[in-house]
Amino acid sequence: MALKDVARVERNEAGIAAALGVLKQRFGERFSTGEAIRAQHAHTTTYLPAQLPDGVAFVESGAEAAEIVKVCATHRCPVIPFGVGTSLEGHVNAPGGGISIDLTRMNRIIAVHAEDLDCVVEPGVTREQLNAYLRDTGLFFPIDPGANATLGGMAATRASGTNAVRYGTMRDNVLALEAVTASGETIRTGGRAKKSSAGYDLTRLLVGSEGTLAIITELTLKLAGVPQAISGGVCPFPSVEAATRAVIETIQMGLPVARIELINGLGMKALNAYSKLDYPEGPALFVEFHGTDASVAEQAETFGEIAGGNDGGPFLWTAQAEERQKLWKARHDAYWAGLALRPGARGLSTDVCVPISRLAACIAETEADIAEMGLIAPIVGHVGDGNFHVLALMDANDPGEIDRVEHFVARLNARAIAMEGTCTGEHGIGQGKMGFMASEHGGAIEMMRAVKAALDPSNIMNPGKILPPGAE
Amino acid sequence: MALKDVARVERNEAGIAAALGVLKQRFGERFSTGEAIRAQHAHTTTYLPAQLPDGVAFVESGAEAAEIVKVCATHRCPVIPFGVGTSLEGHVNAPGGGISIDLTRMNRIIAVHAEDLDCVVEPGVTREQLNAYLRDTGLFFPIDPGANATLGGMAATRASGTNAVRYGTMRDNVLALEAVTASGETIRTGGRAKKSSAGYDLTRLLVGSEGTLAIITELTLKLAGVPQAISGGVCPFPSVEAATRAVIETIQMGLPVARIELINGLGMKALNAYSKLDYPEGPALFVEFHGTDASVAEQAETFGEIAGGNDGGPFLWTAQAEERQKLWKARHDAYWAGLALRPGARGLSTDVCVPISRLAACIAETEADIAEMGLIAPIVGHVGDGNFHVLALMDANDPGEIDRVEHFVARLNARAIAMEGTCTGEHGIGQGKMGFMASEHGGAIEMMRAVKAALDPSNIMNPGKILPPGAE
Repeated sequence: MALKDVARVERNEAGIAAALGVLKQRFGERFSTGEAIRAQHAHTTTYLPAQLPDGVAFVESGAEAAEIVKVCATHRCPVIPFGVGTSLEGHVNAPGGGISIDLTRMNRIIAVHAEDLDCVVEPGVTREQLNAYLRDTGLFFPIDPGANATLGGMAATRASGTNAVRYGTMRDNVLALEAVTASGETIRTGGRAKKSSAGYDLTRLLVGSEGTLAIITELTLKLAGVPQAISGGVCPFPSVEAATRAVIETIQMGLPVARIELINGLGMKALNAYSKLDYPEGPALFVEFHGTDASVAEQAETFGEIAGGNDGGPFLWTAQAEERQKLWKARHDAYWAGLALRPGARGLSTDVCVPISRLAACIAETEADIAEMGLIAPIVGHVGDGNFHVLALMDANDPGEIDRVEHFVARLNARAIAMEGTCTGEHGIGQGKMGFMASEHGGAIEMMRAVKAALDPSNIMNPGKILPPGAE
Repeated sequence: MALKDVARVERNEAGIAAALGVLKQRFGERFSTGEAIRAQHAHTTTYLPAQLPDGVAFVESGAEAAEIVKVCATHRCPVIPFGVGTSLEGHVNAPGGGISIDLTRMNRIIAVHAEDLDCVVEPGVTREQLNAYLRDTGLFFPIDPGANATLGGMAATRASGTNAVRYGTMRDNVLALEAVTASGETIRTGGRAKKSSAGYDLTRLLVGSEGTLAIITELTLKLAGVPQAISGGVCPFPSVEAATRAVIETIQMGLPVARIELINGLGMKALNAYSKLDYPEGPALFVEFHGTDASVAEQAETFGEIAGGNDGGPFLWTAQAEERQKLWKARHDAYWAGLALRPGARGLSTDVCVPISRLAACIAETEADIAEMGLIAPIVGHVGDGNFHVLALMDANDPGEIDRVEHFVARLNARAIAMEGTCTGEHGIGQGKMGFMASEHGGAIEMMRAVKAALDPSNIMNPGKILPPGAE
């Protein structure tokens, strides 16, 4: 199924018009129907065309979000929650029109419970904002997807990133939520206890549901202690396969690596050019260890031995902050470095995740596919989790090239699913990956549909996302 | 609401009779209606009276389980999944009668993927069986609730135990499930990738759902590497409050403690008497560290300093296996040691979990309550998670005493919930804690009801558990 076929939702013109009328009156200047604002809220980083909402409401509280959903429920008008628009699969598009609820003004940090290693925030708080706020507490929020996303958006898409191998994903780091249901009721899921066996895990049901079941209006998040010491470095390998073997050994021996990132040969070339570095231009692992002075040294030494045993190295590591920051700045700039490989091109960032034993094969087949299709597409990956990204560079004005990239992505997803993996490790489904849901989940998709129908019977919550039209 | 009021489910006599007829014919000797077998399958460790199923089917495959559910769906006959019956809140009782599906013959270990640190098992495999099987692989399954429970049952109740502070709970360690839905369809949730953002987290929805949404017929579980070295020991403290302060500091500084267990004064007295030990008879922490030789020594030293700074100690630790095993054997025998405090008494083991900052206050108030009510009830706790157990000893033939214990449990749960905690950290709701669901979850319980109604419209899946009758 091509991407363009899965993103249709019928417009309820009368309902949308009625909701617009009510909301304009209620929210005045905080409700916009101007095209520029609407276009900004349908910002998409895919090759999907933007599908604009009919209006954008800038809410300042959960009660206001609930009020809007109530109006929209009455008139069967779609609502699409919006953070800062860094999602990568068309999550904020409005295929059936409706109201975009902009949550960025809900950016208060409500509480930090240092003794409990948790905090309570509004959904518009970004991860950088939170970490700046935490700076003097000895704590930090470890999930880092690269972009300075909002925490509400990160929860909605079950985001993760470089630290997930040690600290988990948003699945593991959201303790509790406040959310507005499809009927406009405000509920609280979970609590501040670190664990619970009290009933259905609604928190985990809402994390990753991309606004299709409820709108997150408050999050209670786990925090981690800032490690006493950090060590890290870059380690070159003769092949992706050798690097992957080293990763498997590292994980298997329980070395508590905090980050272990693969960059393939093309990716390293891009990095060197963009960040003016002189790393060897073959596959490499970027690694980082958190712990005490003694343990980060021990971990780095052990990793060096593992790397050496797999034809890698030399592993040059440091515990100095400045050098580490240079290294991770380069890693974080991988997207821009990749783009610079082909000036003027648009980049499509796609991700899959496979069992780590299949990672080398999956990347090798993907590299072969890239070569065969004549694409330029560097690979970077959170390989401790078996998760990798391909940045496919394309001329977005060339329909033939878009078709080729779409075909490449379809093959990549089918490959990952065939290897008992998933069509997305951390970007989410949105519109872009709906076409792979059926092959990944089989009959379980009917259970998802039943949950969606039960919790959003009028299909007003971010419609046209996650679940493809029923007839396949 | 008293326990006895929440456990009623109307019997569908005609449907049950019809299902019994079909299943007897189909399963022959593997289907029993004998009273002894039925009573064994309604085994309850609470003070709830046993409520027997009408028949017990010993299934040997997921396909057989699906077949039974299909028959029962046709006739609207309840089905109750059964492992080894170690659950603590009446989960396997049959308040509306029906069929107990005994899954213990489904005890095959289907695959161990050492490179991926995962395995695939049938639900009747017990954790000890799995760990014995893994002995030569360098891997182990870390979740240890004490009892040698089945892994299916542990997933269904979202179990955890002593290692959870480091390795997480069943929530974190189940990668994927095969399950039979209420209509008898077999679905697969999740996959073998370590993370995914592909749609609703059905795995987490089913983990902890206690057989009320689907019956688990296969599990893919995360495994951990056996640590190179283990150190541990017992550390006395002058008060629960001092011990708890030491726990908070330990967690907050990111010391990766593998186990950190509190036993209160009465608990230590019971332990000494039962296991013929001579620990000081005040509150103590049992701790264990996993890592390399160097790191477990460093961790133990650091913990000793933290303990000393909180008036605790001396902390005598060892990395010798024999001494550690003696220590943890004593800890694991805490239930029997507690029972021996009052010969002939029945023990009711209840658990709550609170934010760790509230733990000292919660235990202090609970100890005061125990004293005031004249109960004998030692306390042990997985305090790194804020989770603790009270073993209330009672004469099960004395209705007045049962009432008092029930009152005590109600106050304990209300206290935990008021402290932003939960009425159960790891035992589950079953029948025993249904009365606390509404006060813990508020309006979110309606979302749970909607999910239950959508996935089990005829209410045949372990009815009368988790969700209390609607009218409160």
